[in-house]
Amino acid sequence: MKNPDFELKFKVRDYECDLQGIVNNANYQHYMEHTRHEFILTKGISFADLHAKGIDAVIARVEIAYKSPLRSMDEFVSQVRVSIDGVKQIFYHEIYKFPEMRLCVRAKAENVCLINGELSICDDLNKLLTNK
Amino acid sequence: MKNPDFELKFKVRDYECDLQGIVNNANYQHYMEHTRHEFILTKGISFADLHAKGIDAVIARVEIAYKSPLRSMDEFVSQVRVSIDGVKQIFYHEIYKFPEMRLCVRAKAENVCLINGELSICDDLNKLLTNK
Amino acid sequence: MKNPDFELKFKVRDYECDLQGIVNNANYQHYMEHTRHEFILTKGISFADLHAKGIDAVIARVEIAYKSPLRSMDEFVSQVRVSIDGVKQIFYHEIYKFPEMRLCVRAKAENVCLINGELSICDDLNKLLTNK
Amino acid sequence: MKNPDFELKFKVRDYECDLQGIVNNANYQHYMEHTRHEFILTKGISFADLHAKGIDAVIARVEIAYKSPLRSMDEFVSQVRVSIDGVKQIFYHEIYKFPEMRLCVRAKAENVCLINGELSICDDLNKLLTNK
Repeated sequence: MKNPDFELKFKVRDYECDLQGIVNNANYQHYMEHTRHEFILTKGISFADLHAKGIDAVIARVEIAYKSPLRSMDEFVSQVRVSIDGVKQIFYHEIYKFPEMRLCVRAKAENVCLINGELSICDDLNKLLTNK
Repeated sequence: MKNPDFELKFKVRDYECDLQGIVNNANYQHYMEHTRHEFILTKGISFADLHAKGIDAVIARVEIAYKSPLRSMDEFVSQVRVSIDGVKQIFYHEIYKFPEMRLCVRAKAENVCLINGELSICDDLNKLLTNK
Repeated sequence: MKNPDFELKFKVRDYECDLQGIVNNANYQHYMEHTRHEFILTKGISFADLHAKGIDAVIARVEIAYKSPLRSMDEFVSQVRVSIDGVKQIFYHEIYKFPEMRLCVRAKAENVCLINGELSICDDLNKLLTNK
Repeated sequence: MKNPDFELKFKVRDYECDLQGIVNNANYQHYMEHTRHEFILTKGISFADLHAKGIDAVIARVEIAYKSPLRSMDEFVSQVRVSIDGVKQIFYHEIYKFPEMRLCVRAKAENVCLINGELSICDDLNKLLTNK
């Protein structure tokens, strides 16, 4: 990904692999969620604190293209870039296996904010996310 | 969903909820995977047996629209319908919360088959899946 | 188990198996937790409601003997019996694979209650749990 | 722990927390498993390779004392020390939260090796594990 806003290095844990010996599909959503939460932490925002304040960031839509599988103990980088589109924060994700930088997953996750359960525009969050 | 090929009843388990008190996004992929695997079992095909024979069914692409969240101990039905498109088996999923049948998730998952690691058309599988 | 207080039927989901093709150790804690939570629901107590009221049931200690593994799509019964010991609720668990009723796991889980973060005796809970 | 054989730093990922806002009990087994697998990797042994060779390391028994909970994004160190006892490899685990080094979990996990499904003494593994 050109100019990611944030990236994080991971290593596959064996319990993340299923009986096919490859990382189970659902776990890539975990990797991407953790990448987003670490990214927003660099902006001073904690997912848990947001929840405690009545602001729930929730994924409204996700598209994931699985390009090649990760296996036991593989190391990889998870990259993310964000853009704002009305009420949505759109996160673009790419995951590359080290060291050959083989593309494993490309995804787009659309996030919205519920404030006390109501869909809301979160200007403060948007400003922080796009503040380079 | 009109005319699902298969449906399965579930109940949310508390460990599937995260600190927001709602089912974590990734777990819907688990629900849908289990629904597919139970569906193909009704056709006499086991995911584990396929793997043991060198045939790996893998998800190449998924799109998930999260419509409304599931919470602790909610009961729901997970429906699936399949169609064949070249090398792909396309699974359409819908998840509805009981008893009001509120739509929670609508998704499309594209599956492909790797035979000994090579992308292959799996005629036997396709015939069984579409045999009503 | 003689005279379980509660039992629940499960089926292994493929994502619960790891690269050895058997259910990953940690998932038995999930099965047992879900069994406990369904058990207390029969007594009119919800784990989520308890948390919302400031009462957190937490496991303080667990011993698990893994006797034989569960595999893809195995069906099993998870049994539980409870006894009260001072501040602790002690849950005895056994998991048997169908149909041969082969013992898979035997465990003992000691639960305590935190009320607003303080270790407390939960008389109401104890009375309900032991009320046959 | 005095003289751990190996230790690994982790950070809690939000999806590992449940609706109580604390890391779910089962996930500590995941942390400890990953610590063991990284430890044996430093000895040149891969859990996945062992499985591919027909050698399955499986946990026969575990005792876990949960001393204090980990929360969203907490950083911690997971320590392990091994000793050999007949057919068993006994792993002693302790998990401490940074930076105050508060004890969170103390555990003992007994591992055995199945070679082509039969309980076996794994001398090569034992030699490597205890070779300082």
